[in-house]
Amino acid sequence: MRVSRLMLVTLRDDPAEAEIVSHRLLLRAGYIRRISSGIYAYLPLLWRVLQKISAIVRQELNASGALETLLPQLQPAELWQSSGRWAGYTAGEGIMFHLVDRQGRELGLGPTHEEVITSLAADLLRSYRQLPVNLYQIQTKFRDEIRPRFGLMRGREFIMKDGYSFHANEECLRATYASMDQVYRRIFARCGLRAVAVEADSGAIGGSASQEFMVTAAAGEDLILTSGDGSYAANQERAVSLPAAAVPLAASPPSELATPGQSSIDDLCAAHGFDPSQLVKVLLMAARFGRQVQPLLVCLRGDQQLNEVKLTNAVSAACAPRYGPVLEIQPLTAATLKAWGLPQGLGAIPFGFVGPHLADHLLLADQGPVVVDGFAGQAGATGAVADAGGAGAPLANPQPALAKPQPDLQLLPSFLRLADSTAAELERFVCGANRADTHLMGASWQQLCASAEGGPGALMPQVLDLRAAQPGDRCVHDPSQQLQAARGIEVGHIFQLGRKYSQALNANFTNEAGSDEPLWMGCYGIGVSRLAQAAVEQHHDAQGIIWPLSIAPFELIVVPANIADAVQAELAERLYAELQAAGIEVLLDDRGERAGVKFKDADLLGIPWRLVVGRAAAEGIVELVERATGHTSQLPAAEISATLVPRIQQQRSGLAQ
Amino acid sequence: MRVSRLMLVTLRDDPAEAEIVSHRLLLRAGYIRRISSGIYAYLPLLWRVLQKISAIVRQELNASGALETLLPQLQPAELWQSSGRWAGYTAGEGIMFHLVDRQGRELGLGPTHEEVITSLAADLLRSYRQLPVNLYQIQTKFRDEIRPRFGLMRGREFIMKDGYSFHANEECLRATYASMDQVYRRIFARCGLRAVAVEADSGAIGGSASQEFMVTAAAGEDLILTSGDGSYAANQERAVSLPAAAVPLAASPPSELATPGQSSIDDLCAAHGFDPSQLVKVLLMAARFGRQVQPLLVCLRGDQQLNEVKLTNAVSAACAPRYGPVLEIQPLTAATLKAWGLPQGLGAIPFGFVGPHLADHLLLADQGPVVVDGFAGQAGATGAVADAGGAGAPLANPQPALAKPQPDLQLLPSFLRLADSTAAELERFVCGANRADTHLMGASWQQLCASAEGGPGALMPQVLDLRAAQPGDRCVHDPSQQLQAARGIEVGHIFQLGRKYSQALNANFTNEAGSDEPLWMGCYGIGVSRLAQAAVEQHHDAQGIIWPLSIAPFELIVVPANIADAVQAELAERLYAELQAAGIEVLLDDRGERAGVKFKDADLLGIPWRLVVGRAAAEGIVELVERATGHTSQLPAAEISATLVPRIQQQRSGLAQ
Repeated sequence: MRVSRLMLVTLRDDPAEAEIVSHRLLLRAGYIRRISSGIYAYLPLLWRVLQKISAIVRQELNASGALETLLPQLQPAELWQSSGRWAGYTAGEGIMFHLVDRQGRELGLGPTHEEVITSLAADLLRSYRQLPVNLYQIQTKFRDEIRPRFGLMRGREFIMKDGYSFHANEECLRATYASMDQVYRRIFARCGLRAVAVEADSGAIGGSASQEFMVTAAAGEDLILTSGDGSYAANQERAVSLPAAAVPLAASPPSELATPGQSSIDDLCAAHGFDPSQLVKVLLMAARFGRQVQPLLVCLRGDQQLNEVKLTNAVSAACAPRYGPVLEIQPLTAATLKAWGLPQGLGAIPFGFVGPHLADHLLLADQGPVVVDGFAGQAGATGAVADAGGAGAPLANPQPALAKPQPDLQLLPSFLRLADSTAAELERFVCGANRADTHLMGASWQQLCASAEGGPGALMPQVLDLRAAQPGDRCVHDPSQQLQAARGIEVGHIFQLGRKYSQALNANFTNEAGSDEPLWMGCYGIGVSRLAQAAVEQHHDAQGIIWPLSIAPFELIVVPANIADAVQAELAERLYAELQAAGIEVLLDDRGERAGVKFKDADLLGIPWRLVVGRAAAEGIVELVERATGHTSQLPAAEISATLVPRIQQQRSGLAQ
Repeated sequence: MRVSRLMLVTLRDDPAEAEIVSHRLLLRAGYIRRISSGIYAYLPLLWRVLQKISAIVRQELNASGALETLLPQLQPAELWQSSGRWAGYTAGEGIMFHLVDRQGRELGLGPTHEEVITSLAADLLRSYRQLPVNLYQIQTKFRDEIRPRFGLMRGREFIMKDGYSFHANEECLRATYASMDQVYRRIFARCGLRAVAVEADSGAIGGSASQEFMVTAAAGEDLILTSGDGSYAANQERAVSLPAAAVPLAASPPSELATPGQSSIDDLCAAHGFDPSQLVKVLLMAARFGRQVQPLLVCLRGDQQLNEVKLTNAVSAACAPRYGPVLEIQPLTAATLKAWGLPQGLGAIPFGFVGPHLADHLLLADQGPVVVDGFAGQAGATGAVADAGGAGAPLANPQPALAKPQPDLQLLPSFLRLADSTAAELERFVCGANRADTHLMGASWQQLCASAEGGPGALMPQVLDLRAAQPGDRCVHDPSQQLQAARGIEVGHIFQLGRKYSQALNANFTNEAGSDEPLWMGCYGIGVSRLAQAAVEQHHDAQGIIWPLSIAPFELIVVPANIADAVQAELAERLYAELQAAGIEVLLDDRGERAGVKFKDADLLGIPWRLVVGRAAAEGIVELVERATGHTSQLPAAEISATLVPRIQQQRSGLAQ
C-alpha cells in the first residue's frame, strides 16, 4: 500500500481530547477519529490492526472447537425482562442504550448476549448428545457509559469477542473454563501483550467464579493486587486480604466523650490519642430500586475503606429478591433524595456523629429539623454520609446519576444494617453517640444494640466482607507476604455462569437419564478494540507507537529519503514489489515530503521495520531500522529479503515477545 | 467439522413465519433463527456463508484499490441535521431507529453512512494529491422497516458492504463508478449468482445517476423492465418507455355528459364507447412534511398508471426547499387527515367525478358537506383519491403510517397540480366535471384552466414524467422492441452522488489551482446478508438448498450410512481427515441417525458434494453425489482426492457457474 493513497493525516500536536498516551498516539497517527462522545471511526490502519487481532482470536477459538456465529445487536426487551436484567440495564445507572421501534416495542442495543444465546440454546440444544457447545461472535457492542473516556478504552461503541458455552454438568463447564483460560493466555501472548490473570467480581453478569485478564499499564483503570510470589492476583473490586490487627482499646465502662467539632477520624485520633482501628465509622447511604429506596447503615473499622462493589453485591443479595435489581447506590443526602423525587427532610440525624445504633425512626421526615449534608464527602468522618476519601476504592460512579423522570419512589422506613467483619469483631470501640459533638468510648455491640425498641436484633448489623483490600495488606494464602499494587487494563473476562440464565429462560436439555434439567453455562469476553489500544499503552516511546509485529497494520515501511531522486525511487519501488511478493505487508512512503517528516511519521505510526532508501542507493545499500530497539544496519539491497523475510515470519507468531 | 458438534436442528415442516422458499429453507436447515420481527441470529453455518461472501467482496474491492474501514453505528443527530436528512429518516415513514442517550442527546442507528464519511473526509482529505480515495466497510445496518418480511430479504438488522469514493472532479467519479460496476459484476459472478444491472432511482440517497444489481428470482420484490436486446434494463421505479399513442377523440365543442354512477374508467368506457386513452383521470393525494401538508392533484391519461417514486421525486423537487423532506404521501381521505390530526371536513369535492380544474377553495372545510372517501381505492376511477388498482407500481407503503404523535400540521390552501406528459399532450379529452354524475367531453387544458379565478396559470399543472412504464410498452431506444418484465432481488446499488453531501457538510479540498471546492462523491452498496438468501432463492430444489460452491458453508459432506459399522466409520474418518488435509472444507455426519435422515439433511443443507460411505466400504468403494446435478458415481476411496480436489479448487472461483 502506498502512503499517498492512505488518506493519512498525522498530527504534530497532542489533541486536547486525549488524556492518556495511547489515546493521544492513536489520534495523532491517524488511526481513529472521534465522531461523538465515546464513539470513534476506525480508520483503515486501525481496521487492519483490529482484523489481525480478530484473526488471532478466531484461530485460537476455532482450534479449541468453538463455533463462530453472529447474534443480533437489537434485542427485544422481553428477553431481558425474562432474565430480570431489563430494569437494571436500562434504568438509573444501567448502561444499555434502548429505544422504541415504530410498532411501539422496546428494544435494547446489546452490551452483552446472555439472554439471546440462552433463548437460542433453549430452542436448539435438546439433548446431552449435543453438548458441550461453545459459541462465539466478534461484534460491535454498545454501552451508554456515564463517563466515556480514554478513547477506545471506555467507549460507548466498541468491538468485543463474546463467547458462551453450554454443558450437561458443572465438571464439563469447569473444564471448558480452564481451557478458555489457556486459550486466552495464548491469544494475548500472540498479540504481543503482557497480560495477567486475576480473580474478579462477576458484576452484572453474575455466576459463581470469574477471572479477568489485565494488560499491565500505568494508565489502567483497574487496580490489581498481587502477592509477591505470584500465586495470588485479584482485581481490587474482588480482592481479599488479612486486615491489620486492631490496636486494643483499654477496658473501661462505656462512657460519653465530648468531641466538639471532631467529626473526622483524624480529628478524633489527634485529640484523644486513639488509633483509627479502635473506631467504628458509620456510612449512611441509600440504594435505589425500581420503586423502593433502601436506606443503608454501613459500619467499618476506622482504618478500613469501603469496597463499593462488595457493598453492591451485599445489598443486591439482601434486597434484589424483593425489590429487583439495585439501580444505584448514593450517599444519603438531600441532593440524592431530591434527585429521586423523595421528601428531603430527615429526622435529626447528627451527621458526623452517627453511631451504629442510630434508630430507624429518624428516617421519618417529621421527627425534627433537617440536618442533611453537613458532612457529605468528609474523608474519614466517623459518622459520615459517604466514604468519599482515602486511598481506598473510589466510588465507581462518583457523580449522581442524571435526573431522569423517576417513577414514584418510596423510602423504606428502616435501615439495612451491614458491618464489615473487622468492625463487627471489635470487642470495644469508639463510635458516634448519635448526638452532635459527642462520641461513645468503650462501646460494644451488645450494649449498643440492647437499647433498641424492637429488641437487640433490630439494630444488630449483618456481618460481611465489605472492606477494600489495600496494597500492603497481608495475603490470606500466606500472611508473610504483602499485597502489591499494579494498574491494569481489562482485556478479557471469563465467567462460570452456572444455571442463572438457563433457569430464568427455561433452557433445558434431556440428560442421559432421560429427564430435563437446565443447561450449565460459561461466558467469555475479549475487548478487541480495547486490546488494540492497550497494546499501544504497553508498547510506545516518545516518538510514537511500537506495534507488536503480529498485530501491526503493516510489517515494514519502505521510505525513499528523496522520492524525486530516480535511483532512490526506483530501488524503493523494486524493494516494495519484491517484499510484497515475498508475502510481507509493506507500506511505501511515496509522498513528496522531506525525509525527516517521513521518518517522524514512520516512528509515530509504529511500523515494526523501516527500510530507508537514501543516498547510498546508488551503491545498492539501504538502511534497516527496527522500531522497537532503534537498532540500525546498512545492508546491500540484494540481501534484504533473505535477511528480513524469515525474521518477520518468525515474529508473526507474537509468542516470542 | 463434525455434524454432532454443530448444534444442528433441521425442521421437517415449513415454519409458519416464512412466505418465500429461501426463507423457509434457511429456517428449516438451521441457518437462521428469528429473534424479533425482522431480526435474525446467524447460526454458525450461515456465518460461514456470510464470511465467504465478505471475503470475495474484500478481495475484489482491495484489488481495486479500495480501503477497508469501520465507521460507528451510532451516529449523532447533528450530522444528519447538517445534511437535512434527520427529519426524513426519523419522522413519518423514515426508517432510522433513533434514541436519546443518558445525556439527552439524540443518536440514530446507521442505515447508511454518507454523513459520517463526509464529515471524516472534511477532516482528512485536504488536497487533490490525496484523491481519489475509495473507502468501504462491511457492517451491520439497521432499518425500522414498516413491513419487515422474507427473512434476510427485508430485515431490520442486516449486513451491508457500503463504500464511498471521493474525487477531485466528475470525470474521476465517473471512472470509479464504472470500475465499481465491473467489480460488482465480478463479485456476484464469483458468488455464483446470475445478476443483472439496471437503471435505478436514487431515492433517499440522492445523486445524479444510479444503478442496481438484481438477482433474478420469481420472489423478487422489484419489478425489472428489460428490452429484448438486453441494451435497456431498469427498475420499474425508474423505467421509461414510449406510451401507446392515444386514440384521438372526435372533435366537437366541449359539452357535458350525464354519467350517473359511472365513476370508474371501465364504466365510462363501457357506457360511452371511449378508449381509456381518451380520458384524463385525476388523483387527489396529500404529501406530509414536518409542519405542512401539501394537497396534490395529479393528472394521468386514463390508460396509464402512477409511478409513486416519480411522484415522490417530483413533490420533493417542488416542495422540499421550502418545507423540508417529504415524510409520506397518502391518498387525500378523511382517514389520512385524521391520522395527521387535521380537520376532516373538506369542501364539496365530488370524488369520482373530479376534473383537472378542481378549484383550490374546495380544500377549505367550511365550503360544504364532507364527501370524502366515497371512491377511495376504486381502480381506474376517473377522479379518485388514489390509484390503488391496475398492474402499475404498487403503493410502496400501502397502509397508512402508524399514528405517532404529530406536531401541529397545517393543510396548505392550494393544490400542487401535476400532470403526466401523456395527459398534458391530449388536445381533447374526457374528464370529470367536478359535479356528481357528470363528465366533460371534448375538454381541453386551455378551456378548463381559463375558468380559474387566479387566471389560467392557477389551474395549469406542471408537466412531468409520472407514469409507470409497463411490460409491453415500446422501448425508448428502439420503438420496435417491447419492455419485458422480470422480478429481481436488489443485492447491489451504486450511485454518483456528486456534491450533495460535500456541499451540505463543507467537505472541501484544495484543487490543483490552489482554491477550495467541494469533493465529488460516489457511493456503493452490497446487501451481504440479503445476497446469501438471494443465492438460496436462485439455487434450490424441492429437497433443499444448492449452494454455489464458492459460498457454501462446507464444500463436501462425508456421510457414513451406518456409523455403527466399524468399517464404514473408519473409512469415513479416514476420508474426512484426508480431504481436510488437502484443504477441502469437510463436514462429517457422525450422528447415530439413519442413513435416510442424514441424506435428507445433506440435501436440505445444500453442501455441494456428498460422499457416501456405505456397504461397499468393505470393498473400498464410496459413492460421490453432486448436489446440483444429482449426478452419482461409484469410486474407489483411494481415488477420491485425486478426482475431487482439483474440481473443487476450480469451482471455488465461482465464475464457472
